[in-house]
Amino acid sequence: MRQPAHGGNLAWAAALAGCPPDAILDFSASISPLGPPNSAIAAIMSQFGNLQHYPDPAYSDLRFALGHFHNLPPEWILPGNGSAELLTLAGKELSQLAATTLITPAFGDYYRTLTAYNAKVLEFPLDLTNKSHLSLVPNQRQMMKDKGLLLNNPHNPTGKLFSRSAILPYLEEFALVVVDEAFMDFVPPNEEQSLIPLIQEYRNLVVLRSLTKFYSLPGLRLGYAIAHPDRLSQWQLWRDPWPVNTLAAAAAIAVIEDREFQQQTWLWLPPARNQLFQGLATIPGLQPETSAANFLLVKSQHSISQLQQRLLKQHQILIRDCLSFKELGDRFFRVAVKSESDNQRLLTALNSVL
Amino acid sequence: MRQPAHGGNLAWAAALAGCPPDAILDFSASISPLGPPNSAIAAIMSQFGNLQHYPDPAYSDLRFALGHFHNLPPEWILPGNGSAELLTLAGKELSQLAATTLITPAFGDYYRTLTAYNAKVLEFPLDLTNKSHLSLVPNQRQMMKDKGLLLNNPHNPTGKLFSRSAILPYLEEFALVVVDEAFMDFVPPNEEQSLIPLIQEYRNLVVLRSLTKFYSLPGLRLGYAIAHPDRLSQWQLWRDPWPVNTLAAAAAIAVIEDREFQQQTWLWLPPARNQLFQGLATIPGLQPETSAANFLLVKSQHSISQLQQRLLKQHQILIRDCLSFKELGDRFFRVAVKSESDNQRLLTALNSVL
Repeated sequence: MRQPAHGGNLAWAAALAGCPPDAILDFSASISPLGPPNSAIAAIMSQFGNLQHYPDPAYSDLRFALGHFHNLPPEWILPGNGSAELLTLAGKELSQLAATTLITPAFGDYYRTLTAYNAKVLEFPLDLTNKSHLSLVPNQRQMMKDKGLLLNNPHNPTGKLFSRSAILPYLEEFALVVVDEAFMDFVPPNEEQSLIPLIQEYRNLVVLRSLTKFYSLPGLRLGYAIAHPDRLSQWQLWRDPWPVNTLAAAAAIAVIEDREFQQQTWLWLPPARNQLFQGLATIPGLQPETSAANFLLVKSQHSISQLQQRLLKQHQILIRDCLSFKELGDRFFRVAVKSESDNQRLLTALNSVL
Repeated sequence: MRQPAHGGNLAWAAALAGCPPDAILDFSASISPLGPPNSAIAAIMSQFGNLQHYPDPAYSDLRFALGHFHNLPPEWILPGNGSAELLTLAGKELSQLAATTLITPAFGDYYRTLTAYNAKVLEFPLDLTNKSHLSLVPNQRQMMKDKGLLLNNPHNPTGKLFSRSAILPYLEEFALVVVDEAFMDFVPPNEEQSLIPLIQEYRNLVVLRSLTKFYSLPGLRLGYAIAHPDRLSQWQLWRDPWPVNTLAAAAAIAVIEDREFQQQTWLWLPPARNQLFQGLATIPGLQPETSAANFLLVKSQHSISQLQQRLLKQHQILIRDCLSFKELGDRFFRVAVKSESDNQRLLTALNSVL
């Protein structure tokens, strides 16, 4: 049985582990263990009476709520069916440029969306030893005026957080810069490096955000793009008029206003991540990377395919192999940060199988 | 206050009528008055515990259920975020041909999707006096080999049902034929003219279906395409991996298996539509078209803009003007068929304002 694509791997894992899918302890998807927030479920239930109407194609209430959250006028925001939908529209836009520079290792769906529109891709490997800078080849900078740049921050799968000032020079140089900030909300407000505060200064900047990871709602499909209103109006014409369903739109408004859930997440993550990092670092042959996000990339002296199978069969635990990141291959795995007791289960299991 | 796009008009209507949106009796959206089925709501609630997981990107259960319903293997079916999403993918496919023939008057979103990918559009006006045939210009047929055809059946806004045999010749002639059957499920099984039974014989055929109109779930976004598996695999690469959220996918499976709701609909529609047709035909100056769908197109000797406003202000009733169908203009309106008591409210109101 071949392992299926991202998001379809629980059934595969359950078959290997010989248990039902919901008995798997899933460290492979980088989803917060704290949600979904009760506010989301309540909002969904409040909308059952509205299913017989089309969603508002302007998504006025949702754009207003997201705009309020980011201190931006609503027309700078375009909600989508997960940030994945908006990434596809970004791919169509990027394909119109001479080429797109991709920071690698890169999320597999970046290649899918760029390929869909025949974009030319230039790969720039991230220097994993360099902790502070995003260093694209400097002597090629004069050639960037007709090209795009696609990166995520914090970076997936390394968890590396680029500083705002590290990205800033590229905004001056590239024709279009798309920053996928799907994991930025996990960074506490006093440390985050979002480019959203600069959006009104740079017409060539697009920021993509997700609500599915922080609020544990990947089944609901909730994301948004932030960019100049002219660009977003064009994107709107490239897709169907009602990409976000009524239930998802209501849940999005509820969670973005759920300050208590946000605070809980920022209190949970740093100590839980530290516990998992320290535990992994003490296991012989494993070397975790420092991460600003809710996951850790771990370098291993052992084959990950074998390790993954042993964890499944003996402990019903699923880790994310990195075979889909071609630069990483079979010597890296990625794990989500979960509750301290689940993290401990993973550490105990790793100690027992290695 | 300008009237907004399709789907966003309830707030506009409520402001004009001076009442809350849910006090409007809405004849403008062609949605069944019988739903949503209880089976849909129960299915949605059963999935709250799965929101923290990504949807299965293969949508195996949903494709299996839809395949079973249509007596097709699952790989011939691609679920989407409403048929509108799939129409957009059809537009991308059609744009690769020399031109696309569009039967007019045509649903406004057809122009949006064809324009999005710079497709060349050839308009062929429907002969409204011809009750049985779909007659594209015959002497141009030899020029169709490199072109596409996009039509809906039953046709919106006329409600005209083309016979399967009327469309068949075009399958031999056009490079690609996309038939939007968004309203076909309203036609009772012994009268329907779906091309789905021919799908395995014609590689150049795409059928689009909607679950939102028949099951009153436009807020949930549910549709699917039926076509050759190779074509659907290509479409899958053009869009994000999880277009249908977990709640919508579960509701789709539930309603497609809800035979009782389907039977109720086929029992309700013919007499209710006949009641509305007869009532409209007796009002001086109004002339309804015979319809196979759950709506009626009505020709009027009066200005529809004025009529629409009077119905809103005096009766809180919203009818669909046809200004977005440029061939129809201000002398046509469209109304959904609703319950017999609601239909009677419309007839009484029309009699009082005309």
